[in-house]
Amino acid sequence: MSTTARSGPHRPPTLRDVAGIAGVSIKTVSNVVHEYPHVSEATRERVRAAIAQVGYRPQVAAQQLRTGESGLITLALPSLAFTYFSHLAQAFIEEAQRRGQTALLHSTRAGSEEERNVLEGFKRVLGDGVVFSPLLLEEERIAALERTSQPTVFIGEHLPETLPQGCDYVKIDNVSAAHDATAHLLETGRRKVAFIGQITTAVGAQPHSSGTLRRDGYLSALAEHGIDPREAIVQEVADWHRSDGLAGAEALLERGIDVDGLVCANDELAIGALAALRRAGRRVPEDVAVIGYDDVPDALFTAPPLSSISPDKEALARTALDLLTERVRGHDGPPRVVLTPYTLVVRESTAPPGPAPETAAAPPAEKEPAR
Amino acid sequence: MSTTARSGPHRPPTLRDVAGIAGVSIKTVSNVVHEYPHVSEATRERVRAAIAQVGYRPQVAAQQLRTGESGLITLALPSLAFTYFSHLAQAFIEEAQRRGQTALLHSTRAGSEEERNVLEGFKRVLGDGVVFSPLLLEEERIAALERTSQPTVFIGEHLPETLPQGCDYVKIDNVSAAHDATAHLLETGRRKVAFIGQITTAVGAQPHSSGTLRRDGYLSALAEHGIDPREAIVQEVADWHRSDGLAGAEALLERGIDVDGLVCANDELAIGALAALRRAGRRVPEDVAVIGYDDVPDALFTAPPLSSISPDKEALARTALDLLTERVRGHDGPPRVVLTPYTLVVRESTAPPGPAPETAAAPPAEKEPAR
Repeated sequence: MSTTARSGPHRPPTLRDVAGIAGVSIKTVSNVVHEYPHVSEATRERVRAAIAQVGYRPQVAAQQLRTGESGLITLALPSLAFTYFSHLAQAFIEEAQRRGQTALLHSTRAGSEEERNVLEGFKRVLGDGVVFSPLLLEEERIAALERTSQPTVFIGEHLPETLPQGCDYVKIDNVSAAHDATAHLLETGRRKVAFIGQITTAVGAQPHSSGTLRRDGYLSALAEHGIDPREAIVQEVADWHRSDGLAGAEALLERGIDVDGLVCANDELAIGALAALRRAGRRVPEDVAVIGYDDVPDALFTAPPLSSISPDKEALARTALDLLTERVRGHDGPPRVVLTPYTLVVRESTAPPGPAPETAAAPPAEKEPAR
Repeated sequence: MSTTARSGPHRPPTLRDVAGIAGVSIKTVSNVVHEYPHVSEATRERVRAAIAQVGYRPQVAAQQLRTGESGLITLALPSLAFTYFSHLAQAFIEEAQRRGQTALLHSTRAGSEEERNVLEGFKRVLGDGVVFSPLLLEEERIAALERTSQPTVFIGEHLPETLPQGCDYVKIDNVSAAHDATAHLLETGRRKVAFIGQITTAVGAQPHSSGTLRRDGYLSALAEHGIDPREAIVQEVADWHRSDGLAGAEALLERGIDVDGLVCANDELAIGALAALRRAGRRVPEDVAVIGYDDVPDALFTAPPLSSISPDKEALARTALDLLTERVRGHDGPPRVVLTPYTLVVRESTAPPGPAPETAAAPPAEKEPAR
């Protein structure tokens, strides 16, 4: 290695240091750093070697003071421990990197107080703007805000009809998607279709929670197919995990309700429901069709593979970053609401009722667990 | 809402603006922002309301210029689409937030060129320092570097014996963990135990890749239990996904190798192997014991629940951020290597061979899939 390499502690080297070692102009170093195409491969490698040698990197502070934009975008999500959010975050990170932006992750797992911090800009929520998926914040608190504390794009659900100034909202039409999931079961021959989901959240029954919206879609499909609303079967569950789906489906079965279709408010609930049906000796899809929501990667690996609603996370990330960038650069119009697409993905769990399929995945149809 | 609320586009308000509206001193506003305890609840609420009203938030640039630290820590990981990394990232985000730091996420999914960008500080890799889990970078490239481009803590595997100046390395002893997993099978009565994992990566067979290290642990346990190394059964697979585990286990069975234990290099491979065994009518754990590595949440929900090696992600996050903070604040000693703990989690998939367990989760033991 070159003897000119620094060996002291970290001090910020400059473009000038890099240029000196590479034997090129500062402008050329800048061109390489910003990946302009008109630099020869040999020069590019020499500059990169010099950058590595002196440890040069652009300073956040200098860049932010120069352009007024740090290139940092905050993504505020409940938790990456939920598969849906980890995949969504990955879509955002990749899209931000494509744009030369950097995604800063803020977890609001701690609860509604932490979400309030994000909403009101309290404490250190950095970056030029925030893409925010609230979960536990009361809708009234958002509606009561005159203006968001920074350029904000809301995603997901739990948002009021009236939004503050300074924000936009990118969403999937949950009512329509859950309608389509339910209609799919009804149109493939199921007649006694139940819904499993969380309606009452930690802050009460919110009109635009994911569970409420998806239940509304389920009810609208029943109505459209001429089913008496009194025959709707809504099984409320405490949360969104597999264990809740298992408990919810077991509660339905224990109440002696003989369903032949289950619309679950997310895939985790559906996977739990599959386990409950298996334990009870009910075959899927022969006896009961099951559909989820989110199209998590696991949906491919359940027994049988799970039908689901697949939101277009890449389109969501692109649209949200487009809108946010406009806000960061000064757009100050009224809140915009943009819908992003979803698809109904049909797999074996909602095949029409009938004889057993070819695979050996289904367990024996026994009424009692073996001891 | 107050008529003094701003209605123009976003301009950075100051502590002074907040203090004026709340009717308190700038010092009091600062105390609230930094969450000092000696502020009354009433004053705290008044200041928070004023902060929300004017949209005050600390500026990255101002803070970085004042302290020399931005409080931003970059976490560079392959992809949050891998469950292990999404849970690891969540542990880092939470630990960083507890310390008043912010985690910036950089995905190196694009491949080894993107990892080289992180290593050499090329392009915009922001923050005071980086916690970096390389996956595709040749070990020689890391070893050849005299000094990292910024304070760096490596995590995970794929690291050479000789590290550059300016970095530390927090790791789990993969050899020892895979040894323990294998020894557990041997000590519960299994005699023909195979290993399924990826040894040859995109950049060749790296001596410190996760697959290589875990295979070495498997081999050491065989040796320790007096098994002839010629009886070792190593099934190489192309990648780390469920489909690879399924293909690997099927390849083993097709070769007519009558294993009674499978050590899988991660849980995804193990879940795929469970599917292959189910298809082939081999019962787990009665006929074959299966153990994974990572202890992903799904391990609780497989049929049967999967034994695994559980790394302590919280301890990993704490240790890595401790070391990184010391580097950011000027520590410039030689590279430190710190081990973090793991545990062997025993579930039903490695119960000793014998009759079927109590649950009805296991499918019928038939040799041919039903048609």
